Amino acid sequence: MTEPLRVALAGLGTVGGGVIRLLDANRDLIKRRAGRAIEVVAVSARDRAKDRGVDLTRFDWIDDTTALAEYESADVVVELIGGSDGPALTLARKTLAAGKAFVTANKAMLAHHGLELAEAAEAQGTALKFEAAVAGGIPVIKGLREGAAANAIERVTGILNGTCNFILSKMEAEGRDFAEVLNEAQALGYAEADPSFDIDGVDAAHKLSLLAALAFGTQPAFGDVAVTGIRHVLAADIAEAAALGYRVRLVGVAEADAHGLFQRVHPHLVPVDHPLAHTTGSLNAVVADGNFVGRLFFQGRGAGDGPTASAVVADLIDIARGEFGSAFAMPASALAKPAPADTGERRGRAYLRFAVVDKVGVLAEIAAAMRDAGVSIESLIQRGANSDGHVLVAIVTHEGPERCVAQALEKLRGSQSLAGDPMWMHILG
Amino acid sequence: MTEPLRVALAGLGTVGGGVIRLLDANRDLIKRRAGRAIEVVAVSARDRAKDRGVDLTRFDWIDDTTALAEYESADVVVELIGGSDGPALTLARKTLAAGKAFVTANKAMLAHHGLELAEAAEAQGTALKFEAAVAGGIPVIKGLREGAAANAIERVTGILNGTCNFILSKMEAEGRDFAEVLNEAQALGYAEADPSFDIDGVDAAHKLSLLAALAFGTQPAFGDVAVTGIRHVLAADIAEAAALGYRVRLVGVAEADAHGLFQRVHPHLVPVDHPLAHTTGSLNAVVADGNFVGRLFFQGRGAGDGPTASAVVADLIDIARGEFGSAFAMPASALAKPAPADTGERRGRAYLRFAVVDKVGVLAEIAAAMRDAGVSIESLIQRGANSDGHVLVAIVTHEGPERCVAQALEKLRGSQSLAGDPMWMHILG
Repeated sequence: MTEPLRVALAGLGTVGGGVIRLLDANRDLIKRRAGRAIEVVAVSARDRAKDRGVDLTRFDWIDDTTALAEYESADVVVELIGGSDGPALTLARKTLAAGKAFVTANKAMLAHHGLELAEAAEAQGTALKFEAAVAGGIPVIKGLREGAAANAIERVTGILNGTCNFILSKMEAEGRDFAEVLNEAQALGYAEADPSFDIDGVDAAHKLSLLAALAFGTQPAFGDVAVTGIRHVLAADIAEAAALGYRVRLVGVAEADAHGLFQRVHPHLVPVDHPLAHTTGSLNAVVADGNFVGRLFFQGRGAGDGPTASAVVADLIDIARGEFGSAFAMPASALAKPAPADTGERRGRAYLRFAVVDKVGVLAEIAAAMRDAGVSIESLIQRGANSDGHVLVAIVTHEGPERCVAQALEKLRGSQSLAGDPMWMHILG
Repeated sequence: MTEPLRVALAGLGTVGGGVIRLLDANRDLIKRRAGRAIEVVAVSARDRAKDRGVDLTRFDWIDDTTALAEYESADVVVELIGGSDGPALTLARKTLAAGKAFVTANKAMLAHHGLELAEAAEAQGTALKFEAAVAGGIPVIKGLREGAAANAIERVTGILNGTCNFILSKMEAEGRDFAEVLNEAQALGYAEADPSFDIDGVDAAHKLSLLAALAFGTQPAFGDVAVTGIRHVLAADIAEAAALGYRVRLVGVAEADAHGLFQRVHPHLVPVDHPLAHTTGSLNAVVADGNFVGRLFFQGRGAGDGPTASAVVADLIDIARGEFGSAFAMPASALAKPAPADTGERRGRAYLRFAVVDKVGVLAEIAAAMRDAGVSIESLIQRGANSDGHVLVAIVTHEGPERCVAQALEKLRGSQSLAGDPMWMHILG
């Protein structure tokens, strides 16, 4: 195995450029570690003329990206185009069908088509690897697939979107509201011009579905992830949470038990002594609770060219070493397909915040709805009127079934007393 | 590869029992993940009669532990005896010479003989794996060997001994002194009857030398680790550190650069916003700073039967999957052998604490020694006399070469003003 591992690279955005720079910068070290050189031989991207700050003349330029799958002298195709379907998926299918290894950072494609691609890789005995698809440079795919492989994993919890965590951290540190901080994050390049995939939780849900598959030995089930983003988190929510000893984070939680597969991405109140509470700024982090290892915590940079390139090249090194196997930690045929869990039966504590009209009887109405639904209130705080004339009422419930909270909110739906949809955040146990 | 992976297990202490319990509890899951069953076939320990709470009658009992190396129907030997030499080393040599895979939790043996054993494994094309040897259940060996393999690692930093961290955390939380807390830790089983390997930093140094080898592509060099334990840390040091925004931790630090290989285990002042500051109780944690990935942080339980068994069985799963290679991430012949770094040239800030006699001129003497050695003082605090009549003087220096601090302490050595050896703690940058 002294022949170089030859790589065809699709996509020359930030991450693609990062992969080339990394392979240049750490060339000798990687050769020592992998036992053979790793060399890009061909590249493809939309715009050949664009200056990417790296010398591309040494590589074959292929205009038709999906033709990289048939590029004869490549052993591996690295896909950094993105998008759940389209050219990325075509390239994946063709590459694996050709019996070549496939490395991708494309969480959306894997969340939607991961099972099919894993089957295709298995059929050819080749590698499908995607460390960069979840939590950037943090080796969490490997951590679950291999590091924690001896354990029945009880729960995976993670901060999986750096944009959201950056925004929430900044709202927390500066007491500012969402829209304002989002604008600033966009100006700084921490958020996309169209930020909805990030701030609405879809990106985190893609990643959570992959972590769940690895952790529980189940087929990726992105469609079953319950997703709520951070658009409606107020600075006031963060302040109330802080006063109660919590921080607000967009947390993905997955559990599998006899009731089925539970997957949720939602803003949560995280106790300050929980490791995810210390995950600030654009960092990502994953907590895995195993039945023998206990709690494992992984933290690092979840995005950016350097961390993502680090994960892509780690996959290439595994392939160069011949140390790879089933994409989802077991043969695709062995992956279970549990039903989605009934969240109503989940027990937990909840943070509920209402923006209400400042008039007599509103509190009584809310309290009655809670009582009638069997929701027990641990604390209730009402603050004076906002600049928009509304009053905020924040409730923390005692532990109870989520069904009851949902019923209480249903009772209040359409009430003239409410000045908007209530905010329901789960409190991480 | 549907034949079971057959395991011969040497050592039936807490961890050995844990491995058997884990393989029983997670049998089906492991079979799905590994693609084949993992089965213990033979065991060996000192006392056959002892009740270990697991059914051993289903395994062959072998009286001569080192004979497990020749146990014909085993594919792997798992060594959980401990000790850097003696039967553990004999078993390792014989197992690898017989071409069987070898899995161990024995940090002492690897720190002393890791290179030899890696060469022996390579010569036979078999596996030498030791995830359980460092940081218990946390997959840090894999994290460095594979997860961060694309990076030049600039620095590895870790809390590698749970006993020390438990003691320091308890001293911090309760304001109590070392000896008292050690006694309690011993009573609780968190510290050995002879705790010196732990509290004097030797155990952490064993582990650090293995992390350094993996991180930097160097031969394990345990003999070059500068080691100081936590015996002389006072509750007062922890209180002063807290007042300055630091926590006291026994930290292992390794760096490799043009000046050579730097390895140190020493009590450090850790800034409260550093991830290691949040590693409390008996947890372990490792920070790796890579040139592309940035800072990776791994945290979890560093000892105990469950976490350690989890790491042992993770190694077995890698072997069952056929996903293993060089023990130290590259062929033993490719490992560099840098000279130990000259610590005098290292620049940093220091915490210095003196117990002094309560008389005129002592402060002047200390201040003069600092001045004469070129040590610039950032802050100096003198507190009233202790119960033993001595006064504590705590100094934090500006950044400067360690050589100067060493010179200042040398000037003060033997001074009648000092009531004991000064404490020098480095401040983590």
